[in-house]
Amino acid sequence: MNILSEIACSTTFYSRPKPGLRARQLQRFCVSLKLQKNEMSQPVEGFSKLSKESKIRFIAERYTAHPEQTENLLRQYWNTDARLQQLHDEFIENTLSNFYLPLGVAPNFLINGELYAIPMAIEESSVVAAAGKSAKYWLERGGFNTRVLGTEKIGQVHFYFPGNREKLGRFIEAVKPILLQDAQPITRNMVRRGGGILGVELRDKTQAMEGYYQLHGRFETRDAMGANFINSCLEQFSATLLREAAVHPALAGEPPLEILMSILSNYVPDCRVRAEVSCPASALEAEGGLSGPQVAQRLVQAVQVADCEPYRAVTHNKGIMNGIDAVVIATGNDFRAVEAGVHAYAARSGTYRSLTGASVEDGVFRFWLEVPLALGTVGGLTTLHPLVRLALEILGKPSAPELMQIVAAAGLAQNFAALRSLVTVGIQRGHMKMHLLNILNQLGANEGEKLAMVAFFKTHTVSHNAVVDHLKTLRSGT
Amino acid sequence: MNILSEIACSTTFYSRPKPGLRARQLQRFCVSLKLQKNEMSQPVEGFSKLSKESKIRFIAERYTAHPEQTENLLRQYWNTDARLQQLHDEFIENTLSNFYLPLGVAPNFLINGELYAIPMAIEESSVVAAAGKSAKYWLERGGFNTRVLGTEKIGQVHFYFPGNREKLGRFIEAVKPILLQDAQPITRNMVRRGGGILGVELRDKTQAMEGYYQLHGRFETRDAMGANFINSCLEQFSATLLREAAVHPALAGEPPLEILMSILSNYVPDCRVRAEVSCPASALEAEGGLSGPQVAQRLVQAVQVADCEPYRAVTHNKGIMNGIDAVVIATGNDFRAVEAGVHAYAARSGTYRSLTGASVEDGVFRFWLEVPLALGTVGGLTTLHPLVRLALEILGKPSAPELMQIVAAAGLAQNFAALRSLVTVGIQRGHMKMHLLNILNQLGANEGEKLAMVAFFKTHTVSHNAVVDHLKTLRSGT
Repeated sequence: MNILSEIACSTTFYSRPKPGLRARQLQRFCVSLKLQKNEMSQPVEGFSKLSKESKIRFIAERYTAHPEQTENLLRQYWNTDARLQQLHDEFIENTLSNFYLPLGVAPNFLINGELYAIPMAIEESSVVAAAGKSAKYWLERGGFNTRVLGTEKIGQVHFYFPGNREKLGRFIEAVKPILLQDAQPITRNMVRRGGGILGVELRDKTQAMEGYYQLHGRFETRDAMGANFINSCLEQFSATLLREAAVHPALAGEPPLEILMSILSNYVPDCRVRAEVSCPASALEAEGGLSGPQVAQRLVQAVQVADCEPYRAVTHNKGIMNGIDAVVIATGNDFRAVEAGVHAYAARSGTYRSLTGASVEDGVFRFWLEVPLALGTVGGLTTLHPLVRLALEILGKPSAPELMQIVAAAGLAQNFAALRSLVTVGIQRGHMKMHLLNILNQLGANEGEKLAMVAFFKTHTVSHNAVVDHLKTLRSGT
Repeated sequence: MNILSEIACSTTFYSRPKPGLRARQLQRFCVSLKLQKNEMSQPVEGFSKLSKESKIRFIAERYTAHPEQTENLLRQYWNTDARLQQLHDEFIENTLSNFYLPLGVAPNFLINGELYAIPMAIEESSVVAAAGKSAKYWLERGGFNTRVLGTEKIGQVHFYFPGNREKLGRFIEAVKPILLQDAQPITRNMVRRGGGILGVELRDKTQAMEGYYQLHGRFETRDAMGANFINSCLEQFSATLLREAAVHPALAGEPPLEILMSILSNYVPDCRVRAEVSCPASALEAEGGLSGPQVAQRLVQAVQVADCEPYRAVTHNKGIMNGIDAVVIATGNDFRAVEAGVHAYAARSGTYRSLTGASVEDGVFRFWLEVPLALGTVGGLTTLHPLVRLALEILGKPSAPELMQIVAAAGLAQNFAALRSLVTVGIQRGHMKMHLLNILNQLGANEGEKLAMVAFFKTHTVSHNAVVDHLKTLRSGT
């Protein structure tokens, strides 16, 4: 533990300067307190090594107006079970408390003939409600049909080689068995589970950048997301490449090969899943003055618009990700990896497009989603986070490919709900209705007021102003 | 409340069938219990109207092996303050409990001369540690320079008009003042705060799709993210358009205008922020046997690779989003909206590319990030979620443009940390070191064992197998 920062924490000094204070002022302030300039330029040296209590005290005193309240608030969010809290603290560095995302559940998902209740961790008020509504809608119309289109993952060693291209090609071919052999200590367990390295190949990228090549690896990681496995394989590939390049006769007299980096890719177009719903267009619900077939036609148009207009496609796909991420988080997967891979896939044609498709042919409405999803149901947080374990149990302890299909169904359901609102009654009515309780909480409404307000807004349009106004009316008793 | 589902909940029936049971089996099972088929095909009719207790009981009994344990686990994650818990429950529908994301803090961010500690909500073990390390690194080299490049947001009314294009153009020009006037009840408060509608224009998209046009609106929403504001304006635009089109002389004799949908865009290339760090290349730390200038050169190469190779760009940008999303979530913003907008921006050239740039010129290393970010520091969850309020206080109660800059700095820091590892010692060493405690928790290591293991792996390479092996050794006392 760093002595300086402990001293800093134990004085009230840090409770005064607030962000907004410029570095120079801060220095002057420091000097006026006869602290050395050096202490100020490194005000939290060794922060990560402080105890959790000291970290909280430091942040509370240095950055908040009421340090004691801040400390109490952070503690109020701790779990009462100290061991459980410690487990969560140790997930990352510098943990102060637990950030709550609501964990909800959307029931009634009929996927390939099986009924699921899908756990979702998400803060947006309308997402779980929309998922549940879509699930119910399609439960009555045959449910979701899903299938996995591939489970192949990718990793690359990026390197420079300023020498002869053909010789490099011969070298890589010659060295392939050694690459695989050297990786065996890493791949052994994965091979036992039916996975492993599917193949490695040289990719010539010299047209994009002088001397730039890749060793492009393809991997099967079964129920693991596989990032650690793939990165470990790739770092071993790098070591083998360097060692062999220095001595291999194919490269005799050639300049040295220089490795830049080795890393998996979150772009996984061949680890992909498809989800689809379909029914006669006439079986779609008539809404907003439109018949079922008219609703079907407008849904198709909405997808066409998203397919040709990136400004719309981004929000269209964002809605899909509302559903996907909520399940990805609840099941302990990394939503940044999924997001990056999915959106790059949406842009693969050169234009950013819709991830869903829709058609009406021979009177049948079809609506489908295809997305790349690299997910894990073992490893990482999946066995560590008790609520993740529970979410996976609620889903029937799925394999990774099964989870891909559940997640895709959630994404498709979300898009269906959004488009259905958009092309019939508009998005705001439903959204604001879901947001009503949030507004009421913000205004400090009590339980009786909430009941009365919810009843009132069943037949009135919700807007922030309308809620403020009607609560005033209610409170004044007029 | 639905009677059927209450009955269902109060029997043990639902504790038996597990997911994996096909719909037909489920039906048979149902019939054998003399329940009507109808009850089974709608097994959770009215679920959202059940009490939280009943929802939990239903899910626990229907989907988990030990319902009582499930119920206890979900309760263990409830806050002890019932009112606070209710607040969180009401954020969304069907809330069962609170999903914990670790809330950590990365101190030492010097941004435009001010010192920040940045709250981050994230589950990935290495993100906060990497952010803190980069912050410290650049604190000693002049810190982050950031600036906002624009704050303009976008929304569109998508409509069809099969008639004369020029007449439509004249109609829209004529109707513009009415559009703005009709929206005044919605825009009044926003205008008072310095925001509002910046402009509306007709966009002809008929080359992409027959008869397809947009009313493209530009908005300034100040410290609000603005989704509700923009959507409300757009829905009013739709109503005005329809009303005026029916009677306006410019469209006399023309076919009717048909509105498909009205919705904001999460693609906000003109709501953009830039963050940069720079220092003499020789001032970069020598690492992994490389001098400062060599590290600089390799960092530039790493960015060049991400710029020309989508497989790399996706993971490169994913790392940036690790930093961005963690702050976005902690400050109560919608990370799906941010993700979609950022990745589409990365693909704007027709190829998915790096969001960061890097150069060495005249011996000076520069590293920068430009991203679109539509964020809010008022509205939504910002005032509702107590930890979001706290996160915003810790950041000095920033305006939305200030928050854009903080978030961009966090993203740039994250990318710097990732590239720095990748081009020097490789990513796995640091990542696995951070993941060590997770592995130890998974293996049920006690405190003494954890201390011993952490000490051991200071000088040894962490892998899952290595940890398992050394813990065995430790426990056997050999």
